[in-house]
Formats: sequence, C-alpha cells, structure tokens
Amino acid sequence: MLQDTNILRIPGPSPIPPSIQRAMSQPMIGHRGIETKELLQRIKPKLSPVFGTEQDVLIITGSGTSGLEAAVVNTAQAGDDVLVIVTGAFGDRFAKICESYQLNVHRLDITWGDAVQPEIVKDYLKNNPQIKAVFSTYCETSTGVLNPIREISNVVHENSKALMVVDGVSCVGGVETKMDEWGVDVFVTGSQKAMMLPAGLTFIAVSERAWEVIEENQQPRFYLDLNKYRKSLNEASTPFTPGLSLLFGLEQALALMEKEGLAQVFQRHQIMMEMTRNAFKALDIPLLTSDATASPTVTAIQPEDFDGEMLRKQVKQEFGLELAGGQQHLKGKIVRIGHMGYCSPADVIQTIGLMELGLRKLGKDVTLGQGVAAAQECYLKQEVSQQ
Amino acid sequence: MLQDTNILRIPGPSPIPPSIQRAMSQPMIGHRGIETKELLQRIKPKLSPVFGTEQDVLIITGSGTSGLEAAVVNTAQAGDDVLVIVTGAFGDRFAKICESYQLNVHRLDITWGDAVQPEIVKDYLKNNPQIKAVFSTYCETSTGVLNPIREISNVVHENSKALMVVDGVSCVGGVETKMDEWGVDVFVTGSQKAMMLPAGLTFIAVSERAWEVIEENQQPRFYLDLNKYRKSLNEASTPFTPGLSLLFGLEQALALMEKEGLAQVFQRHQIMMEMTRNAFKALDIPLLTSDATASPTVTAIQPEDFDGEMLRKQVKQEFGLELAGGQQHLKGKIVRIGHMGYCSPADVIQTIGLMELGLRKLGKDVTLGQGVAAAQECYLKQEVSQQ
Repeated sequence: MLQDTNILRIPGPSPIPPSIQRAMSQPMIGHRGIETKELLQRIKPKLSPVFGTEQDVLIITGSGTSGLEAAVVNTAQAGDDVLVIVTGAFGDRFAKICESYQLNVHRLDITWGDAVQPEIVKDYLKNNPQIKAVFSTYCETSTGVLNPIREISNVVHENSKALMVVDGVSCVGGVETKMDEWGVDVFVTGSQKAMMLPAGLTFIAVSERAWEVIEENQQPRFYLDLNKYRKSLNEASTPFTPGLSLLFGLEQALALMEKEGLAQVFQRHQIMMEMTRNAFKALDIPLLTSDATASPTVTAIQPEDFDGEMLRKQVKQEFGLELAGGQQHLKGKIVRIGHMGYCSPADVIQTIGLMELGLRKLGKDVTLGQGVAAAQECYLKQEVSQQ
Repeated sequence: MLQDTNILRIPGPSPIPPSIQRAMSQPMIGHRGIETKELLQRIKPKLSPVFGTEQDVLIITGSGTSGLEAAVVNTAQAGDDVLVIVTGAFGDRFAKICESYQLNVHRLDITWGDAVQPEIVKDYLKNNPQIKAVFSTYCETSTGVLNPIREISNVVHENSKALMVVDGVSCVGGVETKMDEWGVDVFVTGSQKAMMLPAGLTFIAVSERAWEVIEENQQPRFYLDLNKYRKSLNEASTPFTPGLSLLFGLEQALALMEKEGLAQVFQRHQIMMEMTRNAFKALDIPLLTSDATASPTVTAIQPEDFDGEMLRKQVKQEFGLELAGGQQHLKGKIVRIGHMGYCSPADVIQTIGLMELGLRKLGKDVTLGQGVAAAQECYLKQEVSQQ
C-alpha cells in the first residue's frame, strides 16, 4: 500500500494543516528583534478568545506537562493542601506533579470513563476547608471524558477560597472554553492537540485572583515562573528563547480558527463526536463514556468480542490509520479515536469506513457501511438542526 | 468548515505526497553541475520500468501537451498521412496538433465513452496503406476509457509500416505499460497524474524503429527536437535548463513507486477503479464506460436523475471535495472522479461517503452507506483474490 503519511487519529499529536507547515518553515528571525515583538503583538489578541478570557495568555516553550507543572508551582507550595480530581491518566499526572513538590495532595479518584460530579467536589471542600487549590482535567484524554468545568468551578468558588486550576490540554481550541465566565483561575493547554501545532508550546491563562496567589507564592521556580512570562508578555516579549517556528505556526493556527469562526470550530468538533459515537452504536460496539460526559475531541470504544490491539495493528498496517490504545489499567481494553484540530466530518467517515474493514478482517461480523451510514445520518441531522 | 487543502479527486493534477513536496523544496543546484548529472543518472534506470521499456526515457520541461506535440513533430512532417484515433477530448487534441502542422489527418472518431476496436484500426490501415503514424490515447481522461493499446499496436504493426504513438498522460505510472512488449514506438506521459508530481515535466519513451524516423524527419523543430534530448541524456544532461525542483520530486516519486512495488501500484489503481465502479452500481448511478474498457485512474458517472454540476458544487463547498465535470459535448453531462497517483482505497471510501452525502443534500433518495459498503465489499474481495 502507498503510504507517505499516516492517517493520524490518535488524541494528539494531531495532523498539521499544510498552511501551518508552510508558516513554520519561514526563515528564522532574532527572538529579541522587532519581528518577534510584532509577532507576539499579533498573536496576543487572537489567543485570548480561544480561552474565553480577557487576560493575555502566557506562552511557555515546553510540552503540555511543563504547563501543568507551571500551574502547580505557581499556585501552591510545599505543605499546601490541594484537591486533585483524578478521572484518568492525566488527572493522575496532575496529582504526581503535586506530590513531587510535597504538596498535601487530596486525591478524588473517579472511575475511569466517568466524569466527576460537582456535588462530590462540593462535599469534599466543605469537609476540607484548608484546600487551597482544586486541580481538574477538562477533557481526560485517557478516557474521552469531558469534566463539567463550569459546574465544578462554581462549586469551588461557592464553597471555598481555593483556586480552580484546569488542564485543558486535549480540548482547548476545539471545545467551548469560557474561562472568565466560569471563574477558572488557571487554564492550561498544549500546542499539539486542538491547536493544530506540533508539541512544543504550552499556553497558560491566569485570572486576577490567581495572580495574587502567584505573586506571593514562595515555591522556588525559575523557568516556569509565570511572573516572568507576564512581565515579558506585557512588553510583547518572552523571558527565555521562544520556539519561534512554533510561534509562526501559532499565528497561522489562530488565523485558520478565526477564518472558520470559533463557534464553528466548536460545532465541528461536536458533530465529529456525535458522528463517531453514532457509528459505534450502530455497529453495536460499546463506548467507554456516556453521551452526557463525552468529549468532542476523543472517543474511546470498549471492545467486547474482538481484540482492540489487533484492530489497531490491522488498520495501521493496512491503511496507515493510527488509533490509540488504553493507558494504565485500561491498556489493551479500549481503543481511542482522536477527532480534534485538523480533522473534519470527511475524516470521520473515512476512519469509520476503515475501522469497519479492519473489524471484518479480524473476523467480526459487522455489516459493512452501517457505521458509516450512522455517521452520515448524524451529519445530515446536525446540518438541519443548525438551520 | 475547516478547509486548509482540497480533497483533490479530479483526473489530474493529483495530490502531491508530502515526501515529494519535501524533496521539491531542496535548495536549488546548478543545472550543469555534477549534482544534476548524478540526479539524472539515478533517475534514468528507475523511470524506464514505469514505461516497460529498455530505452532511456526522455524528460522535457513542459506540460503534457508539449510532450504530445514533441511526439507529432518528431515522427511526422507536413503532408504525411497520419491516423488519429479520437475517443475523447485528448484524442481530439492529438488531431488538432497534427492539423496545426499540416499533416494529412485521418480522424477515426469513436463515440465518447467507448474504446476503439482494434479491428476498425486494422480495416482502416488496410484501406489506407499510406498512413505513416497512428496516434492514440491510452487512458482517455475525458471519458475514463482505457484504449486497448497492446491490441491496437499489434494490428498497426501487422498491417502497416506506421509508427504507433501513444498519449499515456493520465495513466502511465498507475496502469501496466509494456511499451517494448507491445511494440509501441512513442509513449508520452505527463508529471501531474499517476506520477504524483506537479505539472511541468513530460516524459517520452522512443523505440529504435521510431528513432530511425525521427533522425530523418525534416519537420522544423528546436525545443521539442527529441534528437537533442537523446544526445544530452546519453551524457546524463539536458539540452535546455530543466525544471530541477520537479526532477528532485521525480526522484522521490520513483522511490515511492519502487518501495510500494510497480505491480502493487498497478494493483492499487485496479482496486480503486473497481471499488468506485461497484459503489456507483450499488447506488444505481450509471457509469459512462463499460467494465471492460474502464480506466483504473478515472471513473465517469452519467447522472440521470440529478444535476452533476450541482453535486460538484455541493461537495466542493461543503467538504472541499473537488470532482471534475465533462468536456466539450459531455460538459454538464458527466462527473469524473480521479483515483490516481497519491490516492488509496481509504480515499475512495471517503470520496464515496462524501458523494452520498452530497446526493442526499441534492434531494436524491440514496441509501446512505450503500455505495461505501459496495466499495468496502469490493476491497475485501480483491484482498482475498490476491492471496
């Protein structure tokens, strides 16, 4: 089979649009020159709406995890009590980062595949008034759950003085995010998911309330000190050498989002999720999450009568279609399909069509075209409902 | 809808594989330096097998039409009797080129959508022994017909002393081509179809028998004089400044073909044709050509109860899916789907899935997923038949 690129349907990194590839291949510029200053000045007002904030969004050169670590070391210090909501592998990562800084971590472990119920957070905070910050993932990449950040943020602020810190790595840019309206204090995302870029940048938006904490925080930190990034960004600069080619790409990613319209971007992700879910329902293949808690960016199926790992191998080898497996205790038990960033309903149709073929090749008695037809039906209905 | 590139399913230009894009963006080199010589030396032995010839294949910087014109002005001169088999717009173009050089053109017009019958050519040549060259298209791009070149070439050589000249622009590189075995004297193709490159190069393979004519031919010509190209290529050079970035790309295109295996390349095109045809049969949409005469690189459908031009507009606007319409008297009457070069069964599934959606949006009562399922069934059967 001719295979010059993979069909990348993992939940990040996501495919890079050609115009972003082209933008990233611009000749290098000096990071202390006027071109970089002007680039940052152009980026600033376009990045904030993606987070739904009036704040300038800080840009750190590093992977998403460095953004999560920045969120931790800037809002808390050794000995602080923090609540970490763990709905999957990335909630677990947040907890591990907190633990490595000797915070007093309260883990709220939720069954993987479920979202957290705001009431549980409320009860926990009422019983533990010493909690200084609540950490939660928005989309839990490992399960495809979208936690109800708006509601959690509400109960956090109504029942405590804690900061609300959110890992939005696998969804911000593809899912509605209203940081200011929801009262989120720190919102982090990475570049390699719905933002349509390679990994290498992490974006952090910070509320006024959080800045008060960050300014006073005694936790030792240097590269990840957000005060430095704020001070520099006010002068349209960066405290350390930025990943400039990624910034070239970011400007183009924001241009693509602006051209499509942010509301349409979010709507597209919603449609792709519904198409994907309806396809697997039609094929009678169980989904890991409920409709109410599903993320628009990633869908996990839970094979019962076939081997998900064999399916992944099959479609990878035959079509170059790359799907993700499960993490930690879900390893080998689920298959995850990314539909975020540079991905469209046309891609969902292709992915489902190829997975049907893969299933047949594994000997599973699926009716060819049935999942595709369900996805198509769903697409047409969505279109009607928009009119 | 996010649209950073089109889904290009016209019968050329075809999409460019990313590795070829990368190859073409190499820094420029001097066209008289050792690097260019070495590049041509590497290309030569890999290009000949694509044509099924032991001859070196000449490379002209120009579009496919310049290659067709080169075939004419090198093999015939004003006043010569030539037979041009016209099965569509590109046969017609061959005739027009011949006419513009005051050749005595005998047109053999075949109903568009049909292939030429070798017997007709045989009878014509028997009645017209003065014919010096026979011009035919291999794949007629305007209809999706594949003319039986092997059989035509046989009757030409058995019944005349004429040269057999073939336009293989829209299929060589995707369809089995055995120039030497079939006795074809001049075989032309372009770079922008099954060769997976942008337009800008045309490739011409010439038999020993044709060289004898070409060497003696008095037709005035300069840029398109094949003698010049042969002399230069023998020294791994070109008579005029070559399109070097396209040559960088050509080397990579040949590497991709070699990696996949030429037999597999041809098999892939065959499967894509059968998937496409089976899909439209399942959807009860008439095909322009018969199974026996269909080209593996392009399929034309002939809408009866919907407007093909509306369908093209619909899928272009909604999904960025670009299909071709008809040419000349077939304008508005057919829709052509390219499946050549950087195209795979996965792309066919996507194309059919999107066309089904487009048809439904036009109000046609197609059963969603039915065409896709037929294409999938076909794919699975082909796979079995290969084992």
